[in-house]
Amino acid sequence: MLIQRIESEGLSHYSYLLGDAGHAVVIDPRLDVDIYIGLSMDQGMRITDILETHRNEDYLIGSAELASRTGARIWHADSGLPYRYGQSASPGQRWGVGRYTLEALDTPGHTPGSLSYLLREVSGAPWAVFTGDALFAGDVGRVDLLGPDRADDLGRQLYHSIFERILSLGDGILIYPAHGAGSVCGAAIADRPWTSAGIERLLNPRLQVGRDEFVAAGAMAQERPPYFRHMEELNLEGVRVPNLPFPIPLSPKDFQESMSGSVVLDLRSETDYGAAHIPGSQFIWQAGLASLAGWYLSYDTPILLVADGGAEAAVRVLVRQGFDNVRGFLSGGMLAWHMAGHDSHSIPMISVKDLDRILAGGEHPWILDVRSAEEVKKAPFSGANHIHITLLQQRLDKVPRDRPVYIFCGSGMRSMVAASLLKRRGWSDLLVVLGGMAAWSSVVRQQPGAR
Amino acid sequence: MLIQRIESEGLSHYSYLLGDAGHAVVIDPRLDVDIYIGLSMDQGMRITDILETHRNEDYLIGSAELASRTGARIWHADSGLPYRYGQSASPGQRWGVGRYTLEALDTPGHTPGSLSYLLREVSGAPWAVFTGDALFAGDVGRVDLLGPDRADDLGRQLYHSIFERILSLGDGILIYPAHGAGSVCGAAIADRPWTSAGIERLLNPRLQVGRDEFVAAGAMAQERPPYFRHMEELNLEGVRVPNLPFPIPLSPKDFQESMSGSVVLDLRSETDYGAAHIPGSQFIWQAGLASLAGWYLSYDTPILLVADGGAEAAVRVLVRQGFDNVRGFLSGGMLAWHMAGHDSHSIPMISVKDLDRILAGGEHPWILDVRSAEEVKKAPFSGANHIHITLLQQRLDKVPRDRPVYIFCGSGMRSMVAASLLKRRGWSDLLVVLGGMAAWSSVVRQQPGAR
Amino acid sequence: MLIQRIESEGLSHYSYLLGDAGHAVVIDPRLDVDIYIGLSMDQGMRITDILETHRNEDYLIGSAELASRTGARIWHADSGLPYRYGQSASPGQRWGVGRYTLEALDTPGHTPGSLSYLLREVSGAPWAVFTGDALFAGDVGRVDLLGPDRADDLGRQLYHSIFERILSLGDGILIYPAHGAGSVCGAAIADRPWTSAGIERLLNPRLQVGRDEFVAAGAMAQERPPYFRHMEELNLEGVRVPNLPFPIPLSPKDFQESMSGSVVLDLRSETDYGAAHIPGSQFIWQAGLASLAGWYLSYDTPILLVADGGAEAAVRVLVRQGFDNVRGFLSGGMLAWHMAGHDSHSIPMISVKDLDRILAGGEHPWILDVRSAEEVKKAPFSGANHIHITLLQQRLDKVPRDRPVYIFCGSGMRSMVAASLLKRRGWSDLLVVLGGMAAWSSVVRQQPGAR
Amino acid sequence: MLIQRIESEGLSHYSYLLGDAGHAVVIDPRLDVDIYIGLSMDQGMRITDILETHRNEDYLIGSAELASRTGARIWHADSGLPYRYGQSASPGQRWGVGRYTLEALDTPGHTPGSLSYLLREVSGAPWAVFTGDALFAGDVGRVDLLGPDRADDLGRQLYHSIFERILSLGDGILIYPAHGAGSVCGAAIADRPWTSAGIERLLNPRLQVGRDEFVAAGAMAQERPPYFRHMEELNLEGVRVPNLPFPIPLSPKDFQESMSGSVVLDLRSETDYGAAHIPGSQFIWQAGLASLAGWYLSYDTPILLVADGGAEAAVRVLVRQGFDNVRGFLSGGMLAWHMAGHDSHSIPMISVKDLDRILAGGEHPWILDVRSAEEVKKAPFSGANHIHITLLQQRLDKVPRDRPVYIFCGSGMRSMVAASLLKRRGWSDLLVVLGGMAAWSSVVRQQPGAR
Repeated sequence: MLIQRIESEGLSHYSYLLGDAGHAVVIDPRLDVDIYIGLSMDQGMRITDILETHRNEDYLIGSAELASRTGARIWHADSGLPYRYGQSASPGQRWGVGRYTLEALDTPGHTPGSLSYLLREVSGAPWAVFTGDALFAGDVGRVDLLGPDRADDLGRQLYHSIFERILSLGDGILIYPAHGAGSVCGAAIADRPWTSAGIERLLNPRLQVGRDEFVAAGAMAQERPPYFRHMEELNLEGVRVPNLPFPIPLSPKDFQESMSGSVVLDLRSETDYGAAHIPGSQFIWQAGLASLAGWYLSYDTPILLVADGGAEAAVRVLVRQGFDNVRGFLSGGMLAWHMAGHDSHSIPMISVKDLDRILAGGEHPWILDVRSAEEVKKAPFSGANHIHITLLQQRLDKVPRDRPVYIFCGSGMRSMVAASLLKRRGWSDLLVVLGGMAAWSSVVRQQPGAR
Repeated sequence: MLIQRIESEGLSHYSYLLGDAGHAVVIDPRLDVDIYIGLSMDQGMRITDILETHRNEDYLIGSAELASRTGARIWHADSGLPYRYGQSASPGQRWGVGRYTLEALDTPGHTPGSLSYLLREVSGAPWAVFTGDALFAGDVGRVDLLGPDRADDLGRQLYHSIFERILSLGDGILIYPAHGAGSVCGAAIADRPWTSAGIERLLNPRLQVGRDEFVAAGAMAQERPPYFRHMEELNLEGVRVPNLPFPIPLSPKDFQESMSGSVVLDLRSETDYGAAHIPGSQFIWQAGLASLAGWYLSYDTPILLVADGGAEAAVRVLVRQGFDNVRGFLSGGMLAWHMAGHDSHSIPMISVKDLDRILAGGEHPWILDVRSAEEVKKAPFSGANHIHITLLQQRLDKVPRDRPVYIFCGSGMRSMVAASLLKRRGWSDLLVVLGGMAAWSSVVRQQPGAR
Repeated sequence: MLIQRIESEGLSHYSYLLGDAGHAVVIDPRLDVDIYIGLSMDQGMRITDILETHRNEDYLIGSAELASRTGARIWHADSGLPYRYGQSASPGQRWGVGRYTLEALDTPGHTPGSLSYLLREVSGAPWAVFTGDALFAGDVGRVDLLGPDRADDLGRQLYHSIFERILSLGDGILIYPAHGAGSVCGAAIADRPWTSAGIERLLNPRLQVGRDEFVAAGAMAQERPPYFRHMEELNLEGVRVPNLPFPIPLSPKDFQESMSGSVVLDLRSETDYGAAHIPGSQFIWQAGLASLAGWYLSYDTPILLVADGGAEAAVRVLVRQGFDNVRGFLSGGMLAWHMAGHDSHSIPMISVKDLDRILAGGEHPWILDVRSAEEVKKAPFSGANHIHITLLQQRLDKVPRDRPVYIFCGSGMRSMVAASLLKRRGWSDLLVVLGGMAAWSSVVRQQPGAR
Repeated sequence: MLIQRIESEGLSHYSYLLGDAGHAVVIDPRLDVDIYIGLSMDQGMRITDILETHRNEDYLIGSAELASRTGARIWHADSGLPYRYGQSASPGQRWGVGRYTLEALDTPGHTPGSLSYLLREVSGAPWAVFTGDALFAGDVGRVDLLGPDRADDLGRQLYHSIFERILSLGDGILIYPAHGAGSVCGAAIADRPWTSAGIERLLNPRLQVGRDEFVAAGAMAQERPPYFRHMEELNLEGVRVPNLPFPIPLSPKDFQESMSGSVVLDLRSETDYGAAHIPGSQFIWQAGLASLAGWYLSYDTPILLVADGGAEAAVRVLVRQGFDNVRGFLSGGMLAWHMAGHDSHSIPMISVKDLDRILAGGEHPWILDVRSAEEVKKAPFSGANHIHITLLQQRLDKVPRDRPVYIFCGSGMRSMVAASLLKRRGWSDLLVVLGGMAAWSSVVRQQPGAR
């Protein structure tokens, strides 16, 4: 049998192609579906069914596109929703995959109608479960997306789904979730790429507590990227993207002429951006796009890209989140920009040692710490002002304009994202601390800001 | 500067991507346009213009698809035709390609409004000409496509175009035609992949004669595949194919159930087909598809494929000729077919030595020679009955049904094509001569059939 | 963490690349090591250690080559053997892989010194075991390779290793063996690509019995390909193959001149071979090479290949088994051979329906069934003469020369292998049954030969 | 016929694979020969001969490696030299390439024994010439490499070779040289990727003058990278590199520990380097490696790389020039370096507008212009101090240490190379002008420094 996991870079999204004896099924396809078609063709398999574990909120699902190109049927979970395409799957429903069988398990919690899919051996014995956003390696699905009123109830449902529907199948059952480490759908997903029911029962910290504590933990509202709502709507429509839009190379002149009304998104390294960037541009490093684009970009504003080399991978990540309005990218990069005589801006960067010297010297700089609450809790920087990177736009009034702002995060990357936002909003005296907490704890070897 | 030739397998079609300083132009794009987009992106070039040398008759042009994905403008030759998209180019019109310039040359003959495109150096000096179907390496364009009445006039125009517009630019000028050896658009195109005006002036046999002889040669009507007319119509419409249809893998059972109302096209080797094939299937080996599909397939009949390995390359060649109704291919190939218990047929094959023995033994078998008139003239097989492979369907009444038919060609490949057609039409006593004239002349070392 | 399985086509061999935080370890590398280097570079990981689970007998291990190109250390299992390179690993020894740990488990049985490697989570909790040839999905390792005298003892050791060292770690433990379905190292390996201790405890038929029955089953001697001994010797030496030898394209003339003293190995389909092959050639279809080359080829005889398309994949499979003396392949394939006027031979093929008719007609043809004993037991063909394909060379005297021999297997593939061997040895009246038992049971729907 | 040009990135080196009817010839192969083997195998061609146009001085030739892997014969030009492998080709000697013929032409000048290879059509008519370093598009070969005493004589020989041996074949002859634009072997090679004798006769500026002027131009000594002598020696030995060394990923800790005794080579963008680099590192941007590595690196010092993404392409370029002692690269890049708490240095960068303001303000900064003499001549920067980038190491005493040094080139890239060298040698007050002359002429629109 073929069990192939397809990992979508950036989103830490896992989809699956299962196949046997000339037939194949795809679970939770991503929008750029060529990979499923290519893999199934290589194996001589016909994709007959597309199974969804839930109505997704964090990326555009590729079911409609894949169905239109293969003739496969689409089976939705969350069957009460007003989908405009496909049909609803029911708990207990079965699909053949050659000699094997998939069966829908009712596993509500992350959403009210979430399904998992149980893969049974030829003999009928349970073998593996595709758990969607119900159960991850090291974490469980969020239950806060319908709002605080529903979180308790959904949390109880999720607890039941995990313990009574999934783990009860036996410790040996293989677990195939819809996300891996790095996803916005589970902050604590472990860096454990393959797992089983038994491993999770023992090692997943969310499963080590009783039901009440489990429910209470789930009810703590997490951040919700503004683009989620847009995804939810589009996933009811059934978006089709026959070809990924490719970013048009723009000469410095054409690029500059396109800038009015657009946002310039700079995807290079934090140091390269700090050294020289197009005035007014927003920095998000490429691998940070999946988790930050939804907070920093708007669906209404066309995007212009500045990147090292090609911008295709970035476009792919953006389109999967619904940002399909990329006008082009700067051909020749910043070198071409400079050679055309255009101006660039810079943002000063300092090392943790220099910051330490400043603090030791008795200065009291205003330090902005953009890490998450969890990170701050684990390794606090006393004296710093904490605003999570995703909330900065709403709390700009907390940041002083009349004194130097030193920006701090885990590595320096998010600090530069914050710096570029502040600069676009008019701040001028900004410094980014390179290496962030990782550097600080390697070198300064004590609580930052402790003195 | 970038001058990149893109060769489309099968059709021997050449298109060109020219680029400089961030801008690019494509001449005569094929239907599957990803390659132009990919190459231009790698170079950081924006495709701004698409130039056509003439309204094509032998393949679907990709101008509309490429324009829709890049925003490039389309410039048609044969400007009097009722195109439903794009705009007309005029002789003398110029397009910048970075620091370089392209200029339309009026080179009628192959069609009344054919254009060539002259590439000029930065200094303005002529450098290369993209000649479309006016001038090939070793051959010139056909002038018989509008019928015998127009051939003389078009031939005179072509003579003038080649000698007064192209060769007159100087011997050093590089010549970039729209087809290479193997194309249906020029039977005698030389196996000389790169050439110049001077090389052609000296070596092209069609240019070694005076105008009257040139015109007379052009007026000799050649075969015209029936699909040409369909291509001509579609190229006025502006066909778009966002994604190449991919052939669905079909199990032997699904394949058999799809056979009613379809044609089964077998793309394997001639010996594999001869050994065992699906009853009723038509054989055309994969590399022969471009030249023979137009004669043997119909636009109205869905196609099922039998191939070694994937059928993607074959689908690409078929779609470029407008055959986009491929239902699927036999997953697992003939092995799966046999293992499912289905029957297969065979066609006996004999070696040239065996044929020689038969002839030497005084038998007088009925030999069908399906080579072209040119091939027969160069290496006749006395006593054989000559019907070109493209005309066989119209002359079936010339082939006896009551005695063995030995089928002969250059290599054995076209013989098997003919054999499969005859078998589909009810003939039963057929033998294919493996190796064909190539084998005969290697081994028997004398005029075949001479005794 | 990265856990990447590398599957070697043909051999059904699994090796593993594990990595974290810039460091990587490879378990049981194959000979063509570029893939480990490429994958680790893409991840920015340095390969520091190469771990072997046992001294392999079925393929050439790539440890020496990989070490010479990366500077990694080699750790051998079966530490008593006189290796000329690397160092010995000890049970209980640990290796860091970034934040994770691998630990050697003493799991003798398949060989006296076999090791498994236990992967522990950051917390130290057991997570996965790399079991080498101790435990597969659906099967266990062979214990008969040191001869019948040792099999009982090794069987007892293996039982202990599996139950007390591996399964005792908990049902949730992931199991990563060294082979998948199709390997010569475990005839009954299940088509279950991913598994766990719990799944195997429940579903592996070898683990459903008590110790005595387990030991008795292991003591039944299986076939031992003659090339195993050669592999065992070379794996003590430490073979290096900086570049895979590539097969030189040979014109029909050069090919024929190289045939003296060589064996011609034909890798095409069974029907293509049956239709026309080079006289004296041996047929083994490409995917059958891993399991049959060791029985049909000799290390002393140079090999010439006939293949569809490139022969690179075949060369890779051959070299991994130590057959590095490939002189070249027939450029242009059989078509070129025929066009050069060379002769070819054929072997008649019949369908199961025709065979059924013959049997029904009262004829008593001599039927040679070359399937394995297990296959014959499951679906007997009464009246057939059974000689397993691997034993045919030793039992040629059992096959009559004076009457037609109908050759039968599961699909027709091995039948053609047998037919080509018999023909090379002088048999002339041979018929291959296309589709084999698969076809028979689909169509004739009753015990073959029953009447 | 197949005529395939293989372009080696960085070196602007062209080699050629010619093939027909199953046979192939390679002209001037590069060191990493997989590409020739792969292409010839795809075409079913056997490489029989390797032809060299001269003993190369600017890269390591791959003849020995290619011969050892294919069995092809090696034919050297410059036959008087003491080669330790291969055999000498003679003027007039012929090699068959299927139906076509190559013939050695005696074209001394660049070296005393340089050969060109004339490709003749099947008919024997001249078609194309592979001119090595005798004749390029827009330039001719250097004749100064044996020293000023020989330059006149070699110049006269080259004049004769070009006019009497090459151009005399006719204007239509296609010209295939060994280098394209960007090579260190011809500073003025035109950006004209394909050319003919007629095009060069008309457009090549070196061919527009009489013999005396031609000879005088050639006698002007050009710079000679110090690595040339090493290449010349190794190309007599016959270097073999079975596998390109791959750069080992090094953690920041391992990297730092390897730094003693090594040179750190930083391949990122000029702005990224300027923003933050490892103290003591030398900057050369990746595409500048081919032309600058020979001036800035030593064969005796191991190299450590800092790069964006993989360093494989850089290693390839380095090895082709004989720098095979790359110890590894910084895994995770500068981000990992900073996160590990290591320090970095920066170099200030300013825009041309800022420089203009400084000059307008009456300051008289010390400006170092590292462009070539030709560039300076075309667009002088009055008041600047000119030292070509390749000569800077020898003229460090000309650069003041006690005042700010503004560094200027065509784009800013070479300025940063110079800045990193000066910084390594102890200078501290350095500023790089971003965009260089390109920016200046776009924006300031007047002679820089004119006021």
